[in-house]
Amino acid sequence: MVTPQTYHFDEPFTLECNRTLPAFDLVFETYGTLNADKSNAILICHALSGSHHAAGYHEGDKKAGWWDNMIGPSKAIDTDEFFVVCVNNIGSCFGSTGPTSINPDSIDKGEAQPYGPDFPLVTIKDWVGTQALLSDRLGIEVWHAIVGGSMGGMQALQWSLDYPNRLKRCVVIASTPKLSAQNIAFNEVARQSILSDPDFKEGRYLQAGTYPRRGLILARMVGHITYLTDDAMKAKFGRDLKSGKFMYGYDVEFQVESYLRYQGERFSENFDANTYLLMTKALDYFDPTRGHIEDSETSVEADTEIQNSQSQNDQRELSALKAAFAHSECQYLVVSFTTDWRFAPERSQEIVDALMATGKPVSYLNVDAPHGHDSFLFDIPRYMGAIKGFLTAPFITANRTGARL
Amino acid sequence: MVTPQTYHFDEPFTLECNRTLPAFDLVFETYGTLNADKSNAILICHALSGSHHAAGYHEGDKKAGWWDNMIGPSKAIDTDEFFVVCVNNIGSCFGSTGPTSINPDSIDKGEAQPYGPDFPLVTIKDWVGTQALLSDRLGIEVWHAIVGGSMGGMQALQWSLDYPNRLKRCVVIASTPKLSAQNIAFNEVARQSILSDPDFKEGRYLQAGTYPRRGLILARMVGHITYLTDDAMKAKFGRDLKSGKFMYGYDVEFQVESYLRYQGERFSENFDANTYLLMTKALDYFDPTRGHIEDSETSVEADTEIQNSQSQNDQRELSALKAAFAHSECQYLVVSFTTDWRFAPERSQEIVDALMATGKPVSYLNVDAPHGHDSFLFDIPRYMGAIKGFLTAPFITANRTGARL
Repeated sequence: MVTPQTYHFDEPFTLECNRTLPAFDLVFETYGTLNADKSNAILICHALSGSHHAAGYHEGDKKAGWWDNMIGPSKAIDTDEFFVVCVNNIGSCFGSTGPTSINPDSIDKGEAQPYGPDFPLVTIKDWVGTQALLSDRLGIEVWHAIVGGSMGGMQALQWSLDYPNRLKRCVVIASTPKLSAQNIAFNEVARQSILSDPDFKEGRYLQAGTYPRRGLILARMVGHITYLTDDAMKAKFGRDLKSGKFMYGYDVEFQVESYLRYQGERFSENFDANTYLLMTKALDYFDPTRGHIEDSETSVEADTEIQNSQSQNDQRELSALKAAFAHSECQYLVVSFTTDWRFAPERSQEIVDALMATGKPVSYLNVDAPHGHDSFLFDIPRYMGAIKGFLTAPFITANRTGARL
Repeated sequence: MVTPQTYHFDEPFTLECNRTLPAFDLVFETYGTLNADKSNAILICHALSGSHHAAGYHEGDKKAGWWDNMIGPSKAIDTDEFFVVCVNNIGSCFGSTGPTSINPDSIDKGEAQPYGPDFPLVTIKDWVGTQALLSDRLGIEVWHAIVGGSMGGMQALQWSLDYPNRLKRCVVIASTPKLSAQNIAFNEVARQSILSDPDFKEGRYLQAGTYPRRGLILARMVGHITYLTDDAMKAKFGRDLKSGKFMYGYDVEFQVESYLRYQGERFSENFDANTYLLMTKALDYFDPTRGHIEDSETSVEADTEIQNSQSQNDQRELSALKAAFAHSECQYLVVSFTTDWRFAPERSQEIVDALMATGKPVSYLNVDAPHGHDSFLFDIPRYMGAIKGFLTAPFITANRTGARL
């Protein structure tokens, strides 16, 4: 049984987009006990539709937190040993300041209104910044580990770049160094589904008394397909018909249609449309190599043997990623899943390659699992075992100078 | 320069859904000259968004027909040698009877109205039936070949099952024996985009003076992603920004977004929404093994060594496909493309496996091409060469009894 806590941060926070939040709330949960020297804390970063409720039960809940199979007594992230913190990010819709929160500007104008579309677009880097402020407030100077899957993995990665001396271990699961054009394309379909829904009302649906339900259902349906795999859908639904025969109409005929519609509808009841838009943009924007591409131009020019422009691009990207990792100080564990086609194993391997080439300590696991991108939420022994082992192994202080040569 | 022709069929045609069209039109084009014994005719079957305009130019056109790189003098389908016919299918929106045609029932009621949503759902088998009637009218008893890509390949395949003695060669390109759950899922997202657009007006948008433009744009965007590949999109757009920097808003930021929106908008201007719905359903319904699954149950039971239920299912599907092909008499050429993930090479190989196991003559080519599913529309020498060779090689009469043993 867990109870969320909320901290209010009464200080301006300037975002990457150059806009400033005058103040903000962060809602979070903790599991386990912080030890005396505050050295056993693990931060969990959530993904697109996640929340601070990663483990345990809230009063009256039938379902446990989203990563309850990972976090708990004797589990891979062992709460008998570690103090685990999971925080809802700003811009989300589960309690931290976001589009559904009251916009202080509106109070000044005499009428309290939610931010809605006026909430600024936030980035992975912004989230990491707010999480660092939470760390300060909790008195945690150095995290034993920061762990995340998918978009959560991006936050863990960003931590290791922005606050290299504030974490000892970084666990990046089912993630990517940046979104591909196809990833962005799927996000854009999801966004257009919401933006083009007449009930969206330019984001002011709360004031208008409407809700872009149809848009949110479509957005989730297309997203959901990318989380699963063709084979997993075949095993689960195949071409099974709902009524056993073709109906020759547009009602549900195949079981897979029924499943997708149900998932979309359920999601639309619990999620805010402005938040969905903003989360997909944060994904698109993530690119730790930004600002490092130019640093690396010279070294690429030197690689005279590269003929092909595609491999020249790949080489440039690897160099930029190496430059981004130059000052990181933690140990990394990178995990991918064989059937994940949203963020395929090759994308995790780009992270591993750049870390290896920079002489950083990194372990990598490509886990055979049938659930596609969703695999990171499943209880897979090899996966759980590796996380547990990585978190409990002693921290190795490398001879960095030597390692880089 | 080509001119389409229209034949009116003033006879009732009963569809698989058990509804009857009292009469219908077929619009088609021909290229080349039919020889005296009518033995040089090749039928081209179009895909989801295709039309009868496969080659050449219409008066005033800037762009040639959709398969102009395949069909023409000295091309893979050589119009100096062959008489080529391409017909627009019923249910489409390019001239053959479909949802935008006048519903004769409405004339009886005194006011001419388009069919709209009252147009019956049609299947691949229905199309093949109407194409057979066109063949009769053209006096073509036996086609030299029937050729199609994607949904067109399904029609070619169905011809070989329904009219085994009316074609000598069957060319099935970038196709599948039936849609997977994931294929259906993507189609369902496209359909829901249209169906949930308030301007759809339950399909009576023509009468209402509206048009489900937003829904059609979304449907095409999601479809378009599945026609391309992650790598092709990377090569074409990567993460290039439209204005060179992040704008932190929902206008176009990445080039890939701009491209997708443009494709969607252009498509929505030239295509009918009811037709799009109906075409995706025809795809979903296609399954030549229906009615053969039970035939094959016994032979599967006999395969006692199969432990795993998934491979048992695969085995059952192979047996059903073998049963479907039992009476085919043509030579097959099956072509897939390495990067096609909509109808992956494995799906083509299912067709090949079933044909091989039934002792049917089949050639198979998996063409290395970077364009994903769209590859079948590209001028790729190995692909074009194989089509040309297959179409001009002498027909081999196999000793069928021997081949089946």
